[in-house]
Amino acid sequence: MSSPNAAGLHDLDASQLRITPTTSLRTVPEPDSAEVWGVKSCTDHMVTVTWTDDYGWHAPEIKPYGPLTLMPTASCLHYATQCFEGMKVYRGFDGRLRLFRPERNCARLVLSSTRVALPAFDPRELEKILKAFLKIDGPRWLPKSRPGTFLYLRPAIIGNGEQLGVTSPSEVLLFIIAVPWPDLSTGSPPGAPPRAPGLKLLASKTETRAWPGGFGYAKVGANYGPAFVSQIEGRKSGYDQILWLLDNQVTEAGASNFFVVWKTKEGKLELVTASLDSKIILDGVTRRSVLELARERLVEGSEHLTSEVKALEVVERTYTIFELEEAWKEGRLVEAFVSGTAYFITPVSAINYRDEDLDIPMGDGTGGHYAGLLKKWLKDIMYGNVEHEWGVVVDEE
Amino acid sequence: MSSPNAAGLHDLDASQLRITPTTSLRTVPEPDSAEVWGVKSCTDHMVTVTWTDDYGWHAPEIKPYGPLTLMPTASCLHYATQCFEGMKVYRGFDGRLRLFRPERNCARLVLSSTRVALPAFDPRELEKILKAFLKIDGPRWLPKSRPGTFLYLRPAIIGNGEQLGVTSPSEVLLFIIAVPWPDLSTGSPPGAPPRAPGLKLLASKTETRAWPGGFGYAKVGANYGPAFVSQIEGRKSGYDQILWLLDNQVTEAGASNFFVVWKTKEGKLELVTASLDSKIILDGVTRRSVLELARERLVEGSEHLTSEVKALEVVERTYTIFELEEAWKEGRLVEAFVSGTAYFITPVSAINYRDEDLDIPMGDGTGGHYAGLLKKWLKDIMYGNVEHEWGVVVDEE
Repeated sequence: MSSPNAAGLHDLDASQLRITPTTSLRTVPEPDSAEVWGVKSCTDHMVTVTWTDDYGWHAPEIKPYGPLTLMPTASCLHYATQCFEGMKVYRGFDGRLRLFRPERNCARLVLSSTRVALPAFDPRELEKILKAFLKIDGPRWLPKSRPGTFLYLRPAIIGNGEQLGVTSPSEVLLFIIAVPWPDLSTGSPPGAPPRAPGLKLLASKTETRAWPGGFGYAKVGANYGPAFVSQIEGRKSGYDQILWLLDNQVTEAGASNFFVVWKTKEGKLELVTASLDSKIILDGVTRRSVLELARERLVEGSEHLTSEVKALEVVERTYTIFELEEAWKEGRLVEAFVSGTAYFITPVSAINYRDEDLDIPMGDGTGGHYAGLLKKWLKDIMYGNVEHEWGVVVDEE
Repeated sequence: MSSPNAAGLHDLDASQLRITPTTSLRTVPEPDSAEVWGVKSCTDHMVTVTWTDDYGWHAPEIKPYGPLTLMPTASCLHYATQCFEGMKVYRGFDGRLRLFRPERNCARLVLSSTRVALPAFDPRELEKILKAFLKIDGPRWLPKSRPGTFLYLRPAIIGNGEQLGVTSPSEVLLFIIAVPWPDLSTGSPPGAPPRAPGLKLLASKTETRAWPGGFGYAKVGANYGPAFVSQIEGRKSGYDQILWLLDNQVTEAGASNFFVVWKTKEGKLELVTASLDSKIILDGVTRRSVLELARERLVEGSEHLTSEVKALEVVERTYTIFELEEAWKEGRLVEAFVSGTAYFITPVSAINYRDEDLDIPMGDGTGGHYAGLLKKWLKDIMYGNVEHEWGVVVDEE
């Protein structure tokens, strides 16, 4: 066993991993099938790790996928003591499995966990456990015969135990599941009409996603369920996602980060997104990657510039829907898109604000040029078309 | 079976109740024992009702208390699709079992459920189910030999099912458990030093509980877990609860409503609490009862007035910590208390704001006169010392 830390508790320790292989393999669904769009089928195994306040993190386990048993008093069912991560594992065109910047997701899970009074851990140990899990379920669920496919990974931490008291739980469960997931950025379910290439957003009217002093920057359950009512109403009105405003500040779109490319009144080209400073929005891994690639490759003198893709300035700041509306009215809006693990990079074709539809330029019809280029760059890294430090290979031997 | 409603779905229907009695009775703990303070032991049975989006509410069940089985993809574990109620059942001094205004809790659970995209139901059916449950577990867990005791009741609704998608769940579970609960308003755990009679509150510094356009008015899990970090930090500094401010507005204290009695600059006596208008605070059943009793009994000419309990005006409005601080500085602060199901009516002895302790008058040392009187009035109704429409008798035959 590992030794306790200074606080007398055991740290998360991937070297203690115990593996119980399944004896009945599940059926791997066809990519883009109805079953995949149902988002119900998980892979053969799951990871579980228990934490208790008198021991710390117990030995991690990989075991057959199956139900969890929780007492009706479990903290996570009543007090939203829960957080999660969304990430993907990719079968590359070079035949290898890759994670995309997994250290970012693992570190953010620590941040989210502690925001709802759940325990911290060494994020590097979680990354090791993730890789051990994918070494087992990766080869079968993302076969080499299917390059260019991915699985969605869902690490989660929930408050558990028998105590109903309104305080931090004395027992906690970390689990990881892997789910065949549809390509939300372009596809649509079998039988459904093909999806229009751009998302239509409805600016929120009365409800607010997050606020200063809250938890909008953490990936905690409490940011999601309360947003569903607005989302459902938006869909009924024909919009794909809510553009979340906070006192007219533009923050996020649905559960994704939101970007706009516009020309300033002075004619300067800018890629603009909400700032992390006020802790309202999620520090998205895709968001961060978009900003870093743009700062590196969309600058004067870059080999990537064309007549349609000009150098621009990358700006993270608080900005309002009025600025967006004004740019639209004055013809300065170049394009808009969302970024995230679920929706990847998806262009935005319209924003409804105050019952008026702002139609956003969509380049050649499938999306703006910047969104297209950023998406290509990221895909090349994820699927191993280029070697890049963000694409972390998972050992399958 | 009941007939479907206009939407083709079945309503919650207490007449469909199925009962499976336990075959192994649990041990009833002694009142105020360590086991009760652990808040871990539930009664012999629990209620469960499943809702599915293709059927509506299935037949309610009363069955032996035991663990729930949830898939790791269950919505409530990831997206805080969850809400609950807190209420008590009382063994009266007249030997009868009573609920306190249960129709208020049942109606509020509908409001909370729909705020997180969970289904609605007829609250009167839930009240019938609650009574059927208490008819079974009430006599043994609140024996007539223990008048003046209570059980805590926890109805909850959670998003369930196998789908991980970020939307309202297609399957839902309503459950009700009953828990022996300590008297938080006066007691302390066995072996612990006796608690000081008044709560010490720490005004929140950087974190905010709720905000306009949010869900502070609903009893959803998302209001609780994110508040634990502040609460734990407050306890470490020697404070019992956080006094939640929103841009200097005084809103709630811990998970209770907050009241103050002060004299205005003009010398008028007022009972002040935050207004429900901006949907920031919970519409507490105890809060509402305090306001109604005060408006009825603390008026000129009332038989209840004494030299220490004078008539006052009841005011629900937005007010700030600066007003509270000014009243304290000018000696106009008469008393303060919190109200709620868990803490009932508990006086407040101090508020720390900007690193300064405002010491609140505590009457004879155990609490202010208004808090004492309101608590007595409510107890008399709950425990059947007086007949009142708020005390709803549970049939035990």
